[in-house]
Formats: sequence, structure tokens, C-alpha cells
Amino acid sequence: MTAHPRLSMNQATLKRATLAEAIAAVQGAGYEAIGTWREPVQSVGLAEATRMIADSGLRVSTHCRAGFFTMADGPERTASLDDNRRAIEETAALAAAGAPGSRAVLVLVAGGLPAGSRDLVGARARVADALAALAPDAAAAGVTLAIEPLHPMYCSDRAVVSTLGQALDLAAPNDPAVVGVAVDTFHLWWDPAVLEQVARAGREGRIATFQVCDWATPLPADVLLGRHYMGDGVIDFAAFTAAVEATGYDGDVEVEIFNEDVWAAPFAEVARRTAESFAAAVAPTSPRPRSVKWIHLVRLGP
Amino acid sequence: MTAHPRLSMNQATLKRATLAEAIAAVQGAGYEAIGTWREPVQSVGLAEATRMIADSGLRVSTHCRAGFFTMADGPERTASLDDNRRAIEETAALAAAGAPGSRAVLVLVAGGLPAGSRDLVGARARVADALAALAPDAAAAGVTLAIEPLHPMYCSDRAVVSTLGQALDLAAPNDPAVVGVAVDTFHLWWDPAVLEQVARAGREGRIATFQVCDWATPLPADVLLGRHYMGDGVIDFAAFTAAVEATGYDGDVEVEIFNEDVWAAPFAEVARRTAESFAAAVAPTSPRPRSVKWIHLVRLGP
Repeated sequence: MTAHPRLSMNQATLKRATLAEAIAAVQGAGYEAIGTWREPVQSVGLAEATRMIADSGLRVSTHCRAGFFTMADGPERTASLDDNRRAIEETAALAAAGAPGSRAVLVLVAGGLPAGSRDLVGARARVADALAALAPDAAAAGVTLAIEPLHPMYCSDRAVVSTLGQALDLAAPNDPAVVGVAVDTFHLWWDPAVLEQVARAGREGRIATFQVCDWATPLPADVLLGRHYMGDGVIDFAAFTAAVEATGYDGDVEVEIFNEDVWAAPFAEVARRTAESFAAAVAPTSPRPRSVKWIHLVRLGP
Repeated sequence: MTAHPRLSMNQATLKRATLAEAIAAVQGAGYEAIGTWREPVQSVGLAEATRMIADSGLRVSTHCRAGFFTMADGPERTASLDDNRRAIEETAALAAAGAPGSRAVLVLVAGGLPAGSRDLVGARARVADALAALAPDAAAAGVTLAIEPLHPMYCSDRAVVSTLGQALDLAAPNDPAVVGVAVDTFHLWWDPAVLEQVARAGREGRIATFQVCDWATPLPADVLLGRHYMGDGVIDFAAFTAAVEATGYDGDVEVEIFNEDVWAAPFAEVARRTAESFAAAVAPTSPRPRSVKWIHLVRLGP
């Protein structure tokens, strides 16, 4: 089997797979790339994980995920920043082990309001502080931090970064090679300003990763799990992907689906269906074959 | 009992009450104002409803709700616009029957994507078309249409208008006395741009109503019902209300809570708890007593 040459399987789509099982599933379906997650990497240990990635011949498109740094100064914040620094090291190691074209991109989810707090403005300011604190570590490791705006329905409990424009504002004080943004259709499709903000992200050299999955209603009881195969929902992937392509982004495109039914299905079937839905709904607007000597465009800056 | 002089009970908070029961509950708790809903009004008939409102001595703050006009031209759209025109007439009649200070404001929820459609841009354009089509009827009836941005989690199935900025853009081609916006904390609190857009709404003379309730997570299985008494969630009412007050808005402030537990409680208890949570969480930032000869500020325009 072959899959689109720019398709990457984000490991969250295979949540119940070990790293070995995830690698086998995507290799079996002809993928060239994978986006790793921290928990399955840590469960085999970073050294073993990097060997597995190197042996697989897959590119690493991102490492997911760190962040969660909206709390005020204190031991909890210090622990969070330390954990983010470990994630930066993981990201660098995994990308170095991956096939040519791998990207050292660490996806960051900001975190929600601290327990008992209503200070959204303050929480957002602490995201900016955390990015500034982590940027030197990321730069030293050759890692790009990708701050991810999450759908506003997660603003209170998962991510106070809610729009692409806000993520770009947060990234702005930093070198685009060091702090970029994650562009995810599920989180952003509703935003009346999203296409112009995608163009802005391109101009500013900030698109560190592009992730896709679909939105459908009704939402499930756990709204975290309301993601779907592309084409099974309402997102206009043609328009969205064309906007991302128009910026010059030619990196891997990750499919990240949080969905209980998808998680319960056989891994090989999920890899196959993901590739099929990508080919049908997303690939028509991103058909360019990519050179093997792919350039880390995000590192060129604006 | 007395309640804050600017507090209005949006009838949706008493969803299972008849109009008579809702009036009795808010009178019993000392409210001066009510925001009516179409279904309980229609179930007694408009003529009887206007008599009941007149007899109650309550102000009418808004009439809820019409809209749902994102579909393409055809019989369904024609029927929707006709229904909106009936709602305009209802609004004018109820406001005329209400006590001095009543406002003829019809809240409009845009509607989601038409079944099978992924054309969000087109759906949003049809909202603009509908407002233009209805504006002459509203102007003739002395009614202000209040387009309501709903939380982005409802974008696909209930309202393609998702931010206050977008609502203001949609309102912009029309006279501010005829097309304004509904500002609702539950839908807008997460928006990084909301306070500046509230200021803009004030400058442009577009704040037709201000509605409050709180946001808390986890969301319930039906995400429509995740609204709470003010103070029971994460919204910073002090900052939000101060921003609305700073625009000069001095109309009634409606409490609109969709919540199964609230709906199941005795009406008198809901009216009392609503007034208490308003007094504790919202009123401290909107203490100005209002003159009886209250001016319809929204009609003065920018």
C-alpha cells in the first residue's frame, strides 16, 4: 500500500497502540511519516524510541505534546517548565533519528484557567512568559515550539489560546524558527478570520505544523472526542488546505483524530481509513510531490 | 423581595413555565423586566400575551428568538423570512405593551450550516442577505434586530455567527437603530478580542441587549445546556460588565440560562437564585440606578 507522500499519522489517532504497533500500522499502510506522542515514547524510553524511529525509516513530523503552563509562579509552574524542557530534548532526539525531512517541532497546548481562577487575561500572559522562558532551550536544541490554538470550547480547561491570530500574537516576540504555531482544522475551521490568519502565519514564517481532522455534530458527551475522519463532517478542506499551501508550507500534514470509535478499531484499519480519507478530502488540494531533500521552510523565517 | 433594577429574566431560564407562571415568578422576586420567548407567547396567543405583559407592569427587554436563515433561496428560506417578519410584529406588540423602558429588540440566531453543506462562507453571506431583507420590516415596526454571535461550538448546527466582531461586521451595512448585536457572556467570554469588540459595539451604537450567564466545565452531554448561574463558573463578570457599562449601555441585563437542573427547579426558586447570583456577580459593576424615563440609547445611533 502507498499513502500520500505528505501524509503523517499523528500517534493520537492510534491512542491505544504502542509505539511499535503504531509504526507497524503506518508502515503497513504506506505512510512516510509519523507524529509521535510523549506517553508511548516514554513507555519504551527515549533511547529505545529513537532506535525504533531510526529503524522505521519514517520521518518525524512533530512530537506531541507539552505546554500546560498557565499557572502562576511556584513549584507547579517550575515543574511544568522543566517538563517542557524534557519534551524539547525528546523532540530533538526523535527528529534526529527520523528520516530526512523530519522536523523538530514540539506541539504545545497552553492549558486552561488554573483551578479557581477567572483571570483569563493573566493566564494568557503567562503563556507568553512561558514561551519566552522556553525559547532559549528550544533554540539551543534546534527545536521549533508550535503553540496550538484549541477550539474555544476548551478555553477554560485545556487551552486559553483559542484563535490562530492570538497564537500568532503570542509567538510574535520570538524568532519564527523557535516559536511557531500549529494549524489544526478541527480547532480553527469556524473562525471567520482563519484564512487571513493562515496567510499571516505564512508571511510571518510561523506554520510549524498543519493538522487535519473533521468536525461533526452532535458533539459526543466528552467533547474532546468529537473528531472525525476527513469528509465525515462539515469542514471545507479544499479551501483550508489551499490557504495553507498558498503560504508555501510544504511540510507533512498530520491527521490527529480523538474519537472513541477510531481508538477502538484495529490499528491497521485506522491507518488505512485515515489514508483513504486524506486522499479523498485533503490531498486534492496538496498534490505536490515533495523532494527528498526537503527544506525546513519554517527555519527560513519571514 | 426586590431585585436589581436593571435585572431582566430571560424566559428561557424558566423554560418549562408558561408566560403566566414566568410573570408570576419574576414579580414574586421583585424583577422589573422580562425577556419573552416566542413559544410561550404563541401558546397563549399574541393578543393575550400583550394583555398579560401590560397587566404585569414589567418592562420587556427583548423577544427571543428568530433567525435561522442560512439556507439558500427557495421555499424554506422564504418561510424562514416570513416567520422572522411575524417575530418582528410580535416584538413590536410586546414592547408596546410593556412598562416604560421596554425595548423592541428581537434576538436573532443565524442558524448553522444547511444539511449537507460545507459552505460556511456562503452561509455567512446569506445571514447578511437576510438582515438586509428584514431591515425594512424591522424599521417600519420600530424594532431592532439583534444578531447574536453564538459560541463557536455551535457553528455547524446553530449559528454561523461566532464572534462579536463578525456580528458587528454583519450589522455594519444597516442602520444601528435597526440592526444591532446581542452581547452574551456565555458565548463570548473566551474571545481574546471581546473587550475591544464590546467597545467597538458601543461606538457603533449596536448593543441591543446584554445577556449574562456563566460557563463551567465539564460541559454536559448536551452542550446547549452548559450554562450556569453567574459565579458558578469561570467568567470574569466584573471585567466584562465594566466594558459594557463603559460604552454607555444602560439597558436591562438579561439572565439566560439553559441548564437542565435550573429548568427542573421550582420557578420561584430559580427567580430568586438568579437575582441573588446577579446581585453578587454582575450588579457590583453596574450599580447605576436607572431613571424611569429611560432613553432608548440604542436608537440614538453612533
